[in-house]
Amino acid sequence: MSEQIIAVDLGGTQIRAARYDSELNILQRESTLTQAAQGPQATVKRMKAYIDKVMPADRAEVQGIGISSPGPLNPKTGVVIAPPNLPGWDNVPLGDMIADTFELPVYVANDANVAALAEASKGAAQGCRHVVYITVSTGIGSGIISDGRLVSGQAGLAAELGHIPVIVETNKVSSIELEAAGPAIARRAQAALSEGAASMLPELVAGDLKRIDARTVGKAAAAGDALSIATLAHAGRVIGLAIVTTVLLFNPEIVVVGGGVTKTGDLLFAPMRQAVADHILDGAFVKDLRIERAALGDDVALVGAAALVATAGGNLDISELDKRF
Amino acid sequence: MSEQIIAVDLGGTQIRAARYDSELNILQRESTLTQAAQGPQATVKRMKAYIDKVMPADRAEVQGIGISSPGPLNPKTGVVIAPPNLPGWDNVPLGDMIADTFELPVYVANDANVAALAEASKGAAQGCRHVVYITVSTGIGSGIISDGRLVSGQAGLAAELGHIPVIVETNKVSSIELEAAGPAIARRAQAALSEGAASMLPELVAGDLKRIDARTVGKAAAAGDALSIATLAHAGRVIGLAIVTTVLLFNPEIVVVGGGVTKTGDLLFAPMRQAVADHILDGAFVKDLRIERAALGDDVALVGAAALVATAGGNLDISELDKRF
Repeated sequence: MSEQIIAVDLGGTQIRAARYDSELNILQRESTLTQAAQGPQATVKRMKAYIDKVMPADRAEVQGIGISSPGPLNPKTGVVIAPPNLPGWDNVPLGDMIADTFELPVYVANDANVAALAEASKGAAQGCRHVVYITVSTGIGSGIISDGRLVSGQAGLAAELGHIPVIVETNKVSSIELEAAGPAIARRAQAALSEGAASMLPELVAGDLKRIDARTVGKAAAAGDALSIATLAHAGRVIGLAIVTTVLLFNPEIVVVGGGVTKTGDLLFAPMRQAVADHILDGAFVKDLRIERAALGDDVALVGAAALVATAGGNLDISELDKRF
Repeated sequence: MSEQIIAVDLGGTQIRAARYDSELNILQRESTLTQAAQGPQATVKRMKAYIDKVMPADRAEVQGIGISSPGPLNPKTGVVIAPPNLPGWDNVPLGDMIADTFELPVYVANDANVAALAEASKGAAQGCRHVVYITVSTGIGSGIISDGRLVSGQAGLAAELGHIPVIVETNKVSSIELEAAGPAIARRAQAALSEGAASMLPELVAGDLKRIDARTVGKAAAAGDALSIATLAHAGRVIGLAIVTTVLLFNPEIVVVGGGVTKTGDLLFAPMRQAVADHILDGAFVKDLRIERAALGDDVALVGAAALVATAGGNLDISELDKRF
């Protein structure tokens, strides 16, 4: 196939545009600052300029344009609803705006769903047809592939794993995001310190506890700090329980965990895997299950946006892509 | 279409066999006792005899045989693993045993998945393509239809909603089944009574608290018994939180709740709906969401087994069935 694919990664900080061949090899890549403060019109204009930069001379060679965008958004209409990190965006018909300019098929999906497609086409889940992808950073997001196709739901809102209730006590309901994302890790460490727990953390932030973030906790944990190790273990356990839920509901071949917090490695993964082993219903669910770190780095959103086009918005079997490679 | 479908409902108590037309109208129905104590060989023999009873004179008119069976089972291989209510069943290749005798395509699925197909084809979810079905009785099971197709996972084990961790305290992890199924409702009421709670329940069981079951609690709750009302409300809340999880992960059009415990009606459904309203991430998930009682009665497994054949094992879009009607 001679067709090419345009991929765009719209982030809160950067806009990146790239051109891929039909086997999802990158041919060209450009990037610019989002300058989100200028509002949606200016940002979309910049996106279009950078799409132009990576567009081949003959547009007829292009199969379509795939866009990874922060959610919430509706992938069926291409409307971006109101992402927290894109101020002023309020039901922006991004898909139509791009399609009107370039007269090509345009697919828009949220960054976690796009990352799931990326890991399934070129990353840790390559060749798999039943994939749960979880990203743990400032928030917790997910993308789920069931029987080769992206699970999107009636309005494209599916796979919001971060918000499932997992800590439920008599008068308290909490979510995995509130218990295990980066800010939760920082808050939990700060709370323990303010209750007088011993730790090297205060030293790392020169006594300014407000400066503690998940990265600081990871650093201290790697250096053997017991409080930080326990804090990451709590996060790992909660993510592990969320993995139990997804495994029981989707029976996947692989759970891929990515996002900044996974840089803490085994300090997070060991308690996570332990929680899965402790709480899964039956060994049959985990016999052929792999739980792995995401394999793709900064390009995950671009690769995924390209895969979004190659699978017609996640509607074609992702494992069919492999046959092209 | 002139094709007919054979449907079999293998239950712990009864075997039921029926013949349907291609529009899932019932043409004939037969039933017998399972006599599960006689073991799998005898039970399968009885199944075959009852399939023969509903088989048309010309077998070429039959599209296939659909079987609803207690799980766990593997729908891809037709092997029934070890259902608690079928003693002696240990990896019985039920699908092959039936197919070898009748030389017809045979599809086997667990009763909750079959019920989901039934509700989506002829019940409360008719015409829907994104359906979560939950059954609350002795256990809690589920069947999920995403984008028209049954979610089954890599080994057909998906949709085990009853076992997702939902009550998680520091040293305790519980599942919705352990908190909200019929036996849990009975246990919770018994525990409160043994701590001296006032209630009409002891009177209903002539003082023998062991005789309290979910039905007794439902009866007392309907008569205004505060303890029983609170017990059902706890179950409803936990099921509501599980619904939140499925709604966040699957973004369905409808959640159908069936099973014996739903006979308690609003005493269960009101706190369930309230928990969904209280804990859902965003109104967008519930704007077009219906939460409804199952519409099909005793025939749910037969209708679903017929739908299983009509959708080639849940792999064809269930909403396409509607076009036949």
